[in-house]
Amino acid sequence: MEVLHLFVLCYTYTLFFSILKPDVASSDATNMECTLHRDKDHFIINVFYKKYLHSDSDIQRHNSIFFSLIPWNLPVSSLVPSMLFISVDAIHGGHFEIHFDNVRVPASNILLGEERGFEIAQGQLGPGRLHHCMRAVGLAEWVLELLCQCIEVVAHWIAECRITISQSRLLTLHAAHTLDTQGNKAGRKHIAMIKVAAGRMASKVVDCAIQVYGGAGVSDDFPLVEMYAYARTLRIADGPDEVHLSTIALPELRDQRRRAQAKL
Amino acid sequence: MEVLHLFVLCYTYTLFFSILKPDVASSDATNMECTLHRDKDHFIINVFYKKYLHSDSDIQRHNSIFFSLIPWNLPVSSLVPSMLFISVDAIHGGHFEIHFDNVRVPASNILLGEERGFEIAQGQLGPGRLHHCMRAVGLAEWVLELLCQCIEVVAHWIAECRITISQSRLLTLHAAHTLDTQGNKAGRKHIAMIKVAAGRMASKVVDCAIQVYGGAGVSDDFPLVEMYAYARTLRIADGPDEVHLSTIALPELRDQRRRAQAKL
Amino acid sequence: MEVLHLFVLCYTYTLFFSILKPDVASSDATNMECTLHRDKDHFIINVFYKKYLHSDSDIQRHNSIFFSLIPWNLPVSSLVPSMLFISVDAIHGGHFEIHFDNVRVPASNILLGEERGFEIAQGQLGPGRLHHCMRAVGLAEWVLELLCQCIEVVAHWIAECRITISQSRLLTLHAAHTLDTQGNKAGRKHIAMIKVAAGRMASKVVDCAIQVYGGAGVSDDFPLVEMYAYARTLRIADGPDEVHLSTIALPELRDQRRRAQAKL
Amino acid sequence: MEVLHLFVLCYTYTLFFSILKPDVASSDATNMECTLHRDKDHFIINVFYKKYLHSDSDIQRHNSIFFSLIPWNLPVSSLVPSMLFISVDAIHGGHFEIHFDNVRVPASNILLGEERGFEIAQGQLGPGRLHHCMRAVGLAEWVLELLCQCIEVVAHWIAECRITISQSRLLTLHAAHTLDTQGNKAGRKHIAMIKVAAGRMASKVVDCAIQVYGGAGVSDDFPLVEMYAYARTLRIADGPDEVHLSTIALPELRDQRRRAQAKL
Repeated sequence: MEVLHLFVLCYTYTLFFSILKPDVASSDATNMECTLHRDKDHFIINVFYKKYLHSDSDIQRHNSIFFSLIPWNLPVSSLVPSMLFISVDAIHGGHFEIHFDNVRVPASNILLGEERGFEIAQGQLGPGRLHHCMRAVGLAEWVLELLCQCIEVVAHWIAECRITISQSRLLTLHAAHTLDTQGNKAGRKHIAMIKVAAGRMASKVVDCAIQVYGGAGVSDDFPLVEMYAYARTLRIADGPDEVHLSTIALPELRDQRRRAQAKL
Repeated sequence: MEVLHLFVLCYTYTLFFSILKPDVASSDATNMECTLHRDKDHFIINVFYKKYLHSDSDIQRHNSIFFSLIPWNLPVSSLVPSMLFISVDAIHGGHFEIHFDNVRVPASNILLGEERGFEIAQGQLGPGRLHHCMRAVGLAEWVLELLCQCIEVVAHWIAECRITISQSRLLTLHAAHTLDTQGNKAGRKHIAMIKVAAGRMASKVVDCAIQVYGGAGVSDDFPLVEMYAYARTLRIADGPDEVHLSTIALPELRDQRRRAQAKL
Repeated sequence: MEVLHLFVLCYTYTLFFSILKPDVASSDATNMECTLHRDKDHFIINVFYKKYLHSDSDIQRHNSIFFSLIPWNLPVSSLVPSMLFISVDAIHGGHFEIHFDNVRVPASNILLGEERGFEIAQGQLGPGRLHHCMRAVGLAEWVLELLCQCIEVVAHWIAECRITISQSRLLTLHAAHTLDTQGNKAGRKHIAMIKVAAGRMASKVVDCAIQVYGGAGVSDDFPLVEMYAYARTLRIADGPDEVHLSTIALPELRDQRRRAQAKL
Repeated sequence: MEVLHLFVLCYTYTLFFSILKPDVASSDATNMECTLHRDKDHFIINVFYKKYLHSDSDIQRHNSIFFSLIPWNLPVSSLVPSMLFISVDAIHGGHFEIHFDNVRVPASNILLGEERGFEIAQGQLGPGRLHHCMRAVGLAEWVLELLCQCIEVVAHWIAECRITISQSRLLTLHAAHTLDTQGNKAGRKHIAMIKVAAGRMASKVVDCAIQVYGGAGVSDDFPLVEMYAYARTLRIADGPDEVHLSTIALPELRDQRRRAQAKL
């Protein structure tokens, strides 16, 4: 079986997957296949990667792939923490490389029901992304605090950081409010917006602090290097900025055209 | 008398002044002097420019200079519309070059009272700046509408514009709310933030639309050139971005240090 | 006949055309058609715009369209200077809107030969673009001079301008050298590179100077507004940046792949 | 003795020092003191940090500090590789934290002569910085190669990288040529220019490649993370960008003013 690099992002009880073949960048989590063999009350999982999926429809593809992967708590022994993500584990919660080679999981571990994994994943993705943005805003506030403790800091840099943090903070609050009051679907565009904005914002603020702290900024004495890695990965993780930009553009275009037609 | 270039920005009943000597860039509205001679129930105004003011205190300097200039409705004949501001009058309300050469204004025109001009000016500056930001947000929304009408537009550009407009919109609303609920002084930092952010945002969005519209974007067929000029001047008018960045940095630094000391 | 907006850029004896329908942005100069009727020793030209050309091949399309338009000195009466380009005529040489409505031109005016217009245009485009870049570099040097005359200028801004001007200057010299020693075809990628770089550079440097000069920067007392318009149009004229970016990317990709295969 | 964090950058036979106190960012290499005790044919070195040096003159200060530190090959045992610099050793040659606590070095190891360390350091700084820029250009060319191997890469990103690499390449060649033909002093401004430009260029190109490679870009499968760290540190190492910007601005201003006076 072809070796698969599979990055797993662990939240308390659920697993999200983003897959990656070494020479293929992909942000489509459906671009993966696995074989499942029922052995009484267990499943035997093997994962392999197929670039071209011959699915009948998107819905079927989503259901058939995710139903069994998402809901289980994998036995820890199958998590191989061999590929650390720029050592950002402390902040990020950890990324692991997993090789699913006849992994046995009890069938009773299934969440929600078979073939409903994608449903769970989609329900979690919005809040999951938002939670990253909230962390990014908090992280940036801490960085600004560090920046202001520096004697040599340029006043305008503080102002630039304050502006970009405040903008991201308000956009995050707005996205969270939309999610709470209008649900996941209505919040989709808002979450895509803050996902892009927060990653850039955190990258910029941390970069600025590193510049002011100089050599100390890239040393172990300050948490800036870890933050720098976290902020950079935020622009890739849970979908790269480019995917989210498309998520924003499409409804924007649709709404603008609807409005233009309403005028006529 | 030395010729003075004085740009006047007309709001309904009040006049704000920002002065400029051809070879000296200045954003300090107190950097100006005028002579006033009372002639019965009129004042005779002559304006000249002095770079180094020997004022006893800032407060005195503010009072002595502005008291008579701000509150009056100048007779229209003294407004010389000779120096148009990249022809942005339609949008901007008009900038005029004024030569105050024995201008007579009735003393009864005085607003609020003598020596209280700076007070009025300060009271108006916050809302005045905010109103520019609101216009910038509205203008940018219109530009995004134009952008979405274009067939060849790049989807990611629409998304980038939507993100930056939404961020500025929320920051403007937040500044307005702070002004309404906590007053001018508390809102000062917030207005400086949105003043910087909105000018850049509008410049970016209009620049993007011009690029998409190509030659048409710089023609008379679309309002983009006027908008481009308006957005560009917004980064200078009512204080250049650099002044506002300082306005943001100082209270930020002070608050951060206060908080740091409170922790100890 | 449908009204056509046609922008004509006059160089001493030759005319280059870029066409534009008010609601369609287009940078493809072949996207235009004209009818030509020979009347003894004259041609009668009518121009109209067709979006979808049903040409057999690109080469034929190029030849059939340009042969008669490029080579003639049009009678001045047919140039309608009704649509000025943000009033940049002094710097830019002038853009005119032309309506070709039964324009008569003597057949003897033809340059090089019939059906060879595109050949001429292509031969001129490279040097024409380069000449714009040279002007942009010269203009930026002048702006930096103005910047250094300012008392309040931030030292780092001078340095930023110097870096970007020097980079564009060297890239321009390199493109010119390639054009001189290896010909138009080899120079194509280099000219596309400097076309993009010089336009951005000039925009940035002028923008910086306007910010430092403040209100004076957008007044008639300094040439910065005209320069600002010129620099902005440079990012659209003679093909927008996006077209040139594609011109750079394709040979780069091809060469990289060739090299990668050579290694194997 | 106060613990000192001293980062040592090893080139074949010589040592360059940049010092750092954990809570003080500093790019002034003279901001350090050491005690030297001659013990027959050896020196005993102890290093400590003093923020405020009471030197009579800059020259004296330079001479007194560096004479003995620069020229020696320190015994390897005194290099404590405890503080790795984002693990960039493979590319960067290694940064070590050193505690000079009664380090014995043979007096015969001295290079050039006593009190001439600063002279050596200064002679090496220009070429040293240039060598970093050359590496940055080479690194960026490699990254562009990686970028072009990616299937999903956006064509315009390739073009953007090609433009910025070519600009930095030409600026590096120009700086090297100036250094070779006109010497270190004349080359100073040119080296400062390329130092700033190359660091930003490399950061931008690597950032772009990481975005295209997605999760793979921040994995161990590709060298992008190491390159990202190298490019980032380049904007701090050997003087942060801000110091170099000042190095550029001052002679630019002086030359511009000289030229302006010559015109009068």
